[in-house]
Amino acid sequence: MAKQGYEGGRLNLPFVGICTFGKYPYVEDWDAIDADVAVLGAPFDFGCQWRSGARMGPRAIREASTLFSFGHAGAYDFEDDITYLDPAKVTIVDIGDADIVHTDTLKSHANIEYGVRKILKAGALPVVIGGDHSVNIPCINAFDDQDPIHVVQIDAHLDFVDVRHGVRFGHGNPMRRAAEKPHVTGLTQIGIRNVSSTAKDGYDAARAMGSDIQSVRHVRRMGIDAMLSRIPEGARYYLTVDIDAFDPSIAPGTGTPSHGGFLYYEVLELIDGLARRGEIVGMDLVEVAPDYDPTGGTSVLAAQLLMNTIGRVLHHRNP
Amino acid sequence: MAKQGYEGGRLNLPFVGICTFGKYPYVEDWDAIDADVAVLGAPFDFGCQWRSGARMGPRAIREASTLFSFGHAGAYDFEDDITYLDPAKVTIVDIGDADIVHTDTLKSHANIEYGVRKILKAGALPVVIGGDHSVNIPCINAFDDQDPIHVVQIDAHLDFVDVRHGVRFGHGNPMRRAAEKPHVTGLTQIGIRNVSSTAKDGYDAARAMGSDIQSVRHVRRMGIDAMLSRIPEGARYYLTVDIDAFDPSIAPGTGTPSHGGFLYYEVLELIDGLARRGEIVGMDLVEVAPDYDPTGGTSVLAAQLLMNTIGRVLHHRNP
Amino acid sequence: MAKQGYEGGRLNLPFVGICTFGKYPYVEDWDAIDADVAVLGAPFDFGCQWRSGARMGPRAIREASTLFSFGHAGAYDFEDDITYLDPAKVTIVDIGDADIVHTDTLKSHANIEYGVRKILKAGALPVVIGGDHSVNIPCINAFDDQDPIHVVQIDAHLDFVDVRHGVRFGHGNPMRRAAEKPHVTGLTQIGIRNVSSTAKDGYDAARAMGSDIQSVRHVRRMGIDAMLSRIPEGARYYLTVDIDAFDPSIAPGTGTPSHGGFLYYEVLELIDGLARRGEIVGMDLVEVAPDYDPTGGTSVLAAQLLMNTIGRVLHHRNP
Amino acid sequence: MAKQGYEGGRLNLPFVGICTFGKYPYVEDWDAIDADVAVLGAPFDFGCQWRSGARMGPRAIREASTLFSFGHAGAYDFEDDITYLDPAKVTIVDIGDADIVHTDTLKSHANIEYGVRKILKAGALPVVIGGDHSVNIPCINAFDDQDPIHVVQIDAHLDFVDVRHGVRFGHGNPMRRAAEKPHVTGLTQIGIRNVSSTAKDGYDAARAMGSDIQSVRHVRRMGIDAMLSRIPEGARYYLTVDIDAFDPSIAPGTGTPSHGGFLYYEVLELIDGLARRGEIVGMDLVEVAPDYDPTGGTSVLAAQLLMNTIGRVLHHRNP
Amino acid sequence: MAKQGYEGGRLNLPFVGICTFGKYPYVEDWDAIDADVAVLGAPFDFGCQWRSGARMGPRAIREASTLFSFGHAGAYDFEDDITYLDPAKVTIVDIGDADIVHTDTLKSHANIEYGVRKILKAGALPVVIGGDHSVNIPCINAFDDQDPIHVVQIDAHLDFVDVRHGVRFGHGNPMRRAAEKPHVTGLTQIGIRNVSSTAKDGYDAARAMGSDIQSVRHVRRMGIDAMLSRIPEGARYYLTVDIDAFDPSIAPGTGTPSHGGFLYYEVLELIDGLARRGEIVGMDLVEVAPDYDPTGGTSVLAAQLLMNTIGRVLHHRNP
Amino acid sequence: MAKQGYEGGRLNLPFVGICTFGKYPYVEDWDAIDADVAVLGAPFDFGCQWRSGARMGPRAIREASTLFSFGHAGAYDFEDDITYLDPAKVTIVDIGDADIVHTDTLKSHANIEYGVRKILKAGALPVVIGGDHSVNIPCINAFDDQDPIHVVQIDAHLDFVDVRHGVRFGHGNPMRRAAEKPHVTGLTQIGIRNVSSTAKDGYDAARAMGSDIQSVRHVRRMGIDAMLSRIPEGARYYLTVDIDAFDPSIAPGTGTPSHGGFLYYEVLELIDGLARRGEIVGMDLVEVAPDYDPTGGTSVLAAQLLMNTIGRVLHHRNP
Repeated sequence: MAKQGYEGGRLNLPFVGICTFGKYPYVEDWDAIDADVAVLGAPFDFGCQWRSGARMGPRAIREASTLFSFGHAGAYDFEDDITYLDPAKVTIVDIGDADIVHTDTLKSHANIEYGVRKILKAGALPVVIGGDHSVNIPCINAFDDQDPIHVVQIDAHLDFVDVRHGVRFGHGNPMRRAAEKPHVTGLTQIGIRNVSSTAKDGYDAARAMGSDIQSVRHVRRMGIDAMLSRIPEGARYYLTVDIDAFDPSIAPGTGTPSHGGFLYYEVLELIDGLARRGEIVGMDLVEVAPDYDPTGGTSVLAAQLLMNTIGRVLHHRNP
Repeated sequence: MAKQGYEGGRLNLPFVGICTFGKYPYVEDWDAIDADVAVLGAPFDFGCQWRSGARMGPRAIREASTLFSFGHAGAYDFEDDITYLDPAKVTIVDIGDADIVHTDTLKSHANIEYGVRKILKAGALPVVIGGDHSVNIPCINAFDDQDPIHVVQIDAHLDFVDVRHGVRFGHGNPMRRAAEKPHVTGLTQIGIRNVSSTAKDGYDAARAMGSDIQSVRHVRRMGIDAMLSRIPEGARYYLTVDIDAFDPSIAPGTGTPSHGGFLYYEVLELIDGLARRGEIVGMDLVEVAPDYDPTGGTSVLAAQLLMNTIGRVLHHRNP
Repeated sequence: MAKQGYEGGRLNLPFVGICTFGKYPYVEDWDAIDADVAVLGAPFDFGCQWRSGARMGPRAIREASTLFSFGHAGAYDFEDDITYLDPAKVTIVDIGDADIVHTDTLKSHANIEYGVRKILKAGALPVVIGGDHSVNIPCINAFDDQDPIHVVQIDAHLDFVDVRHGVRFGHGNPMRRAAEKPHVTGLTQIGIRNVSSTAKDGYDAARAMGSDIQSVRHVRRMGIDAMLSRIPEGARYYLTVDIDAFDPSIAPGTGTPSHGGFLYYEVLELIDGLARRGEIVGMDLVEVAPDYDPTGGTSVLAAQLLMNTIGRVLHHRNP
Repeated sequence: MAKQGYEGGRLNLPFVGICTFGKYPYVEDWDAIDADVAVLGAPFDFGCQWRSGARMGPRAIREASTLFSFGHAGAYDFEDDITYLDPAKVTIVDIGDADIVHTDTLKSHANIEYGVRKILKAGALPVVIGGDHSVNIPCINAFDDQDPIHVVQIDAHLDFVDVRHGVRFGHGNPMRRAAEKPHVTGLTQIGIRNVSSTAKDGYDAARAMGSDIQSVRHVRRMGIDAMLSRIPEGARYYLTVDIDAFDPSIAPGTGTPSHGGFLYYEVLELIDGLARRGEIVGMDLVEVAPDYDPTGGTSVLAAQLLMNTIGRVLHHRNP
Repeated sequence: MAKQGYEGGRLNLPFVGICTFGKYPYVEDWDAIDADVAVLGAPFDFGCQWRSGARMGPRAIREASTLFSFGHAGAYDFEDDITYLDPAKVTIVDIGDADIVHTDTLKSHANIEYGVRKILKAGALPVVIGGDHSVNIPCINAFDDQDPIHVVQIDAHLDFVDVRHGVRFGHGNPMRRAAEKPHVTGLTQIGIRNVSSTAKDGYDAARAMGSDIQSVRHVRRMGIDAMLSRIPEGARYYLTVDIDAFDPSIAPGTGTPSHGGFLYYEVLELIDGLARRGEIVGMDLVEVAPDYDPTGGTSVLAAQLLMNTIGRVLHHRNP
Repeated sequence: MAKQGYEGGRLNLPFVGICTFGKYPYVEDWDAIDADVAVLGAPFDFGCQWRSGARMGPRAIREASTLFSFGHAGAYDFEDDITYLDPAKVTIVDIGDADIVHTDTLKSHANIEYGVRKILKAGALPVVIGGDHSVNIPCINAFDDQDPIHVVQIDAHLDFVDVRHGVRFGHGNPMRRAAEKPHVTGLTQIGIRNVSSTAKDGYDAARAMGSDIQSVRHVRRMGIDAMLSRIPEGARYYLTVDIDAFDPSIAPGTGTPSHGGFLYYEVLELIDGLARRGEIVGMDLVEVAPDYDPTGGTSVLAAQLLMNTIGRVLHHRNP
C-alpha cells in the first residue's frame, strides 16, 4: 500500500490504515504473486480438542503486526547492528486467506493447500498463519513436488496421534501425517511437555519414525547451540510454530495452553540459528486464539516473532 | 444429587457444588433415564459462519443454572402465584453431553441424534443445549419415529439455506432441513430480522414450503396473543431457541449477534402461551458462546429461560 | 476484492479475508475514487474528555462489518421486501484512514478534511468513521464549497461548547463549530440527555443559533414521524451519529456513555425517514471505543447501522 | 477539593484527579461533617449467595462518578430546565468507607451503623454505597432514634428470608429485618421478579407484615404515577436500591442478575416522584460488583442515578 | 463416570461432559468414599483482605482440569518416561464441595473440617481446593487425630498474623494457627516475599516457633535440592499451596498477587522432591480467583499442578 | 488520612477507603507541600503512537497501591531485614494530578512542569505517574534550575526521535529532548530491544550524544553490578521507568508492548543499586494503560515497584 505509506508523505502511525500483515501490499490475484515472501491466512478451527477460536488468529495477528510497521526504513536491530526487512531489498505481500468451508474439514484443507501451492509456484516463501495446528497438514502436502524437507516443530504437544475415532486430520495429528510423507526426511520436535492427546504409543511411534523429541527443560539444559547441532545441517527446513510452545505467561491466547513453556528469546535464537544452519523454505504459525488473549499480547508475540523470523530468514539467505 | 442438597441438611448455596443443570442429578447410563425431563449438552461448533465458541455453551449454561437452584421448595413465581418445578411432582435429570468428534460433522451429529433418541425412548422431554444451531438437525431427525411435530423457531436468522458449496448441515441450514422432513408439519419462524446468510431465494423457498415468518417488530405490532394465534393450535411443538433471537443487550455472548432483538418477557410470554396452546415435546437452545459473554449474562439468560420454560411446560401439561 | 469474493468461486464466509469495510475494495489512490460511496477512517482521539481509545474505532468497525458481507446477492430485508446494496447497482469503496499525527490536533484534523474533500471531488458520498466527535469538525469544513447543508446530529451530548481553556476543537465543540459555518443552514440535535460538558449557556446559545434540541423521551413521546416533520424537508442533510446516542445496553464501547439512550430500530427508522425526506450528502459515525466493548457488540451495532444506512440512502435516492 | 476544581483555574476534566464521589471534598473527621449530603462507602460482601465482589463497588462508583463532575456550574438538565446541584446552594461530602473486618459480619455491620449515625447526627442526608444488600441492615438500625420511616425498596429480589441455617444478616434478609423494626412503618417493594432465595413463605410473611410487592411488569402496566400513589404520601422515606432491580442489559455488574428488569428512566422517574411525594431521609445503593462489569457501564449507571437522585432530593426539598 | 469415558466407546474430548475434577467420578455419599484420593472443594472467601472471588475457585479449577482428562491411558510424561495416574492402579473421586454458610465463618470452616475428616476416615488422600487461604485452618484441624505432620507452605505471604481486631481465622492467620497445634511438628515456608499483612513481629514469632522461611530468590540461589534438604526427611507432610506463590505472569487470577514469584517447574520439582522425601498425607491449593483470570491460565495452572502432584504422590508412594 | 488509618483505631484493610497513592494524605494546596516525597499524576496520552489509554494510569496505580498500604508499621522486607517507609521517619503525600487540557499538548505539558516545579520548590522528591512517556519532557524541564542530572531510562524503546512530521513532544521523543538539555549530563538507556519508532539514525544520534544503550540480554549477560558500574557514580540521577521495559508477561497493560523484557527483581535490584550509587532526585513511571490490563497485574507491578523504590531511595539516603 505504497502511497498510503511513510514514503508517500504520510506519518503512517501503526494504528492508522488497513490491517494487512505488516501493512504490506495485499495481492488478491494469486496468479500475480511477485515477492520474496507471501503471507496466507488459514482461519480454520474445527480440528481443536478443547477451546476453539483459532479461526480469528489471522485477523488478530494482522492487526498486531501493524505495531511493527514503522519500518519504512527497515527494521533496525541494534543488538545485531543489522537492518532487517530493508524495503529496498525485500518484497513481502499478504495474499489474504484460504477459503474455509464450515462443517467441511477436507474441503477447507484443500483450499489451504491450493494457496500454498500458488505461493510456491510463484517462487515465494510461504508463511501461513493459522488456524489450528491441523492446517499444517495441507501446508506439508503442498511441498510434495518440491525437494525434500526436514520438519522443525516448536510446540508443547507432540501431535503424533495416528487415527482415533476415525480422526486423521485434527490438530493432534499433523506431525504423524508429516512423518508419513515421502518428501519429509525427518522431524525435530522441540518444546514438548506434559500430558496431552498423544499417549505413550504416539511417542513410541514418533521415535520409531525418527523424530528427535526435546522438552523445554532439555533445551535449557543443553543450550541453543547444542539443540541446533541435533538438527541436520544444510537441509531445507519447514518450520511449524505452535504458539503454545511459548509459556502461557506470554501466550495465553491459545486453545490448549501448557505451563512451563519457552520464553521469547529462546525461540528467536533457535530460529535465528536454524536460518543460519540451512534454508527455511516454508513456515506456519498456528493456534493463536484471540478470545483468550484480552491484552492482545499473544497476537503481538506472534506478529513480533513472524516479523523477526522473516527478516532473519531473508537476511541469512543473502547476508 | 439428593444428599448434597438442601433436603439433606445443607444450605446448598448456588455457588456450592458440582455444576449439573440446575444441580439436578446426573444420569450417566442412558439406558436408565427415568425422569420427566432430560437435559443433554451438544457442544458442537464447526457449523458456524463467523465467531466460534458455542461448544462451551453447555458448560457455561450449567454453571449459570446453579443460580436458580434455590428451588428445594420449587420455584415460586409470585406474579403467577404458582410454584413451578415442585420437586414432589417433577423429576429432571442431566445426562451429560453427546460425544463430539473434532473435524467430523456427520459423526458428531449422529451422536447427538443418538442421545435424543435415548431420551425419547425413556419417555422424557428432551432439552438440548447447543452448540451451534446445526445441532437442531440431529434433534429433529430423532423425532422421525414420533408423531408429527410443528417447529417453532425463535431466532434472528431464517437458517433456510439449502446447499451452498456443498454445505447442508451448517448453522445456516437447519430450518431448511427440518422443512424437508415428512414428520414436520410446518414451521413458525419468529424474530427474524436483518441480512444474514439466507438470501432472498431462501425466504422465497421458506414461504413456498409453508413457513410463517415474523420479525420482532411484527410481533410487537400484533402482540403476543395474535402471534400465538397464527400457530396451529393443539399441535405437538418442537421449540428451537437461538439465543440471538434476543437483543444483543442481553445476549451478547453469541457468534452472530443481530441488533433489534427480543427482550426477556417477550419470549417468556410467547413460550408460556405456546405451552398452553399445545404440547411442547422437545426443545433446544443454541448458539450461546461464552467467550463473548464476559459478564455471564447470556448464560444466565439461557439458564433462566430454560428453567422457566421447563417449569411452565410441565405445569401446563398438568395444571 | 472481487476475485476473493463469492462471485469468484469462493464461499467467502464472514470470518475469512482482509478487513476492509464490508469487504468492499480498498482504493489506495485517492485520486482514483470511482464509487457511489467512499468510506474513510478518522482514528483520532485526543479530543475526548474522559476515556480515550476511539482511535481504534475504524479498525473494530471494519472487522465487525465483515459479518454483514454475506451480501454477494445484496442485502435482502424481508420486512421491507427490498434488496439493498445490490452489487449490480451500487459501488462502495474503502479508502483507508486519514493520516493522524500524534500530539497535533490541527494537522490531524487537516488530514481528515483533505480526505473528505477528495471523496466529494470524486462525487462519492463520504462516510467517515471516527475517532472522537471532534473529527466532525474537519468533515463539516470540507463541505464549505458545496451547496448548503442541514446538520442532523444523533447524540447523547449537545457538544456545543464554544471555547474553554482555549479548546475549540475538542469533542465537546463540534456542533458549535458547525453552527458558526455559513454553509450550515441549521441543526437538529436528537437524543440529547443528562448532564455533560455543555452547561446551560451552551443550550441557550444553541437555541439562539436555531438548533432544535430533542431528548430520547421527547422523540418517544412524539413518535418518529413527528420528529422527522420538525426537520426541514427536501434539504441536503449531513448526518453525524455519536454512538453514545444509543443506550449503553447496546453501545457500551464508547468514551462517555449516558444511560437512557436510543434502541436500534428507533435510530434506523429515523435515518430511513431522513433518507426519504431529503438527501443525505455526507455522514460520520463517531466515538466507538473498542476497549470498552469486550463483546464486540458496539462495533457490530456501528457496522449494522452503517450498512443499513448506506443501503437506504442509495435506495431512496433511486428507488 | 476546591482549589483543584474548575473554579480554581483548572479545566479539571473528568479523568483528572483523586476519585472521591463526584470529586466532592473528602471529610476524614467524622465529627466535622458539615454538609447537606454525606456519602459513605460500605465495602462489605460476605453476605452474598452467589458471586462475590461487591466490596469493590464503592471504589468503582466513585471512579465512574467523576464523569459527572463537570458540574462546576451545577448539573443543568434541559428536559426539566432545572440546574441541579448548584454549588452555591448545595454541599456534598465524601466521608470515605466504614471499616470492614474480614471474617466478621457483626463487627463490620456495626462499623457501618456507626458511620450512618455520625451522618445523621450531623444533620446530613446519608447516602451509602454498598457492598452487598446486607449493608442495609445497619443503615436501617441507625435510624432507630429518628422519626419513623417507610422503606421503599427497588430490587429484583424480595430479600425477606427470616433465618436459614442460622443466617439472619445475609443479603437475603434485609427487608425482613427492616419489617421487624418499630421505627419502620411499612415497606414498598418494587421490581420483584423471578425465583430467588425468598421462597413462598417469605412472600406470605411480607404480605402479612404489610408489604406492597410489585413486579416490573406490574409497574409498567399501571404506570409510574399509579405506582407512586400506592406509597404513603408525605412520609419519611428510606430508599434502598439494589442495582439488580435494573435489567442486566444495563446492570450486568452484580452478583445475582435477574433478567426482565427496569430501564433507567423508569427508576429515575419513580425516584423523582418519590422525592416530590415526601422526604427521602436516607438511601443506599447496593450490589454493584465491578468484576462483572467489564465495560464500566454498571458503575456509570449507579453514579448517574446517585447524582440525579441527590440533585432531585435536594431540589424538591427546596424547589 | 466410566460409561461416559473413553473406555465406554466415546472419544470424550476435554470440552465434552460434566466438570468434576479431572472428569473423575462424583461421590455424593461421604460415607461411601472408596478411593486413593478424594478431592473436596472449599468455596469460602470471607477471609480475604483485598479482592474477593476465591469462592469460584473450585468451579474454575474443575473446568480447567478437563483439559487434562485425556488420560484414559494414564498421564504419560515423556521426560520422566513414567505413566502417572494409570487408571488400572489409581482411583480418584470428587466428593463435591463443603457446605458454605454466607456471613458465618465458623460454621463454614466447620463444614470444611467435616469433609476432610470424612476423607481421612475413608483412608483417602484429601486434596482440598479453596477458597481463600483461611480454609487451611479447618484442614489442619481435621488432622488432630492423625500422626503428627510437618506443614510445607508454598506461598508469597507468611500468613502468620496472630489476632488483629479480633480476627483469628482470616487468610492472614492460617500458618500461625497451624504452628499452635500440637500435631504440627514444624513449618517450612517457601516463596515468601514483599510486604503483606504479616508485619515484622509476625516474622519474629514464626522464627521463634521454628519456621524455616525462604524467599523465591533464596530458593533460586540454593537450588531445589538444597531447599529440600532443609525439610525434615521421612516426615508426614501436609502441603499447602497458595497460588500467589507463583508469579503473577502465570497466576494473575488471585486476590493479592505479588510480583517476583515462582515459575511452574520450580514448584513442580519442589513437590516432586517432597513426595520422594517423605509422605504427603494431605494438601490444599487455595486463592484462585477466576474473576481476575480472563484467559483461564491460572485455573489451568492449578489444575495442571494438582494433576501432576497427585500423580507423583501416588507414584512415589508405590514406585 | 491519618484518622481513617490503622493508628486511628481502624483495621483499614486495603480494599477500604479513598484511593490516594498508598493511602497517603492528599495535599490539594501545592504551596503547602511538606513531605519527603510528593506523588503527582500526569494523565496525558495524546503522545502515543499505537494504543492510547495511559491517561487512566494514575487512577489505576493509585487503586493498586492500596494493596501495599498495610504498612502502618512500615514495610518490613524480611530478605533485607529492613523496615522501609517507617511512618515515624518518612512522610509521603499525594498532590493529585496535573491539569490536562484535551487537544492541547503544550498546555498539558506546561501544567505537568508546573506541578514538578512546585514539588522541587518544596524540597520534596517528585514521583510522577504517567500518562505516556512524553510526560517525561516537562518533568526534565522542571529540573533546569537544579544541579545537573544524569538520566537513567529503563525502557523497551530508545525514544530518541528528533522531529518527524513536526512532532517534537510525542512519546517517541523524550530522550532526545532530554539529551539536548544543558542540565542533563548524560543518559543510560537500559532494556532497549526490538524495532520501534526510533530508526537507525536515532541510535547513531544517541550514541553520538553520549548515551550508553544496553539491551535486556546485555544486562543479563553482564549482571546487575556490571551494569551499575557503567553509570557515573555519585551523580544525581533522574530515573524514568517505562512500564514496557518489563516483559509483557507481567506488564501487558501498556500501549506498545515488546516481548523479551525485564522481570521484577532485575529492575528492583537495578534501582536498589542505583539508589546506593548516588542520589535519585526525581522519577517518573509511565505508559501504564489499564484498558489492556484486565487482571490488574500491570498496575500492581507499577505500585509495587514505586513503593519499593521510594522506600529504598529514602532508606539509602539515610541508612
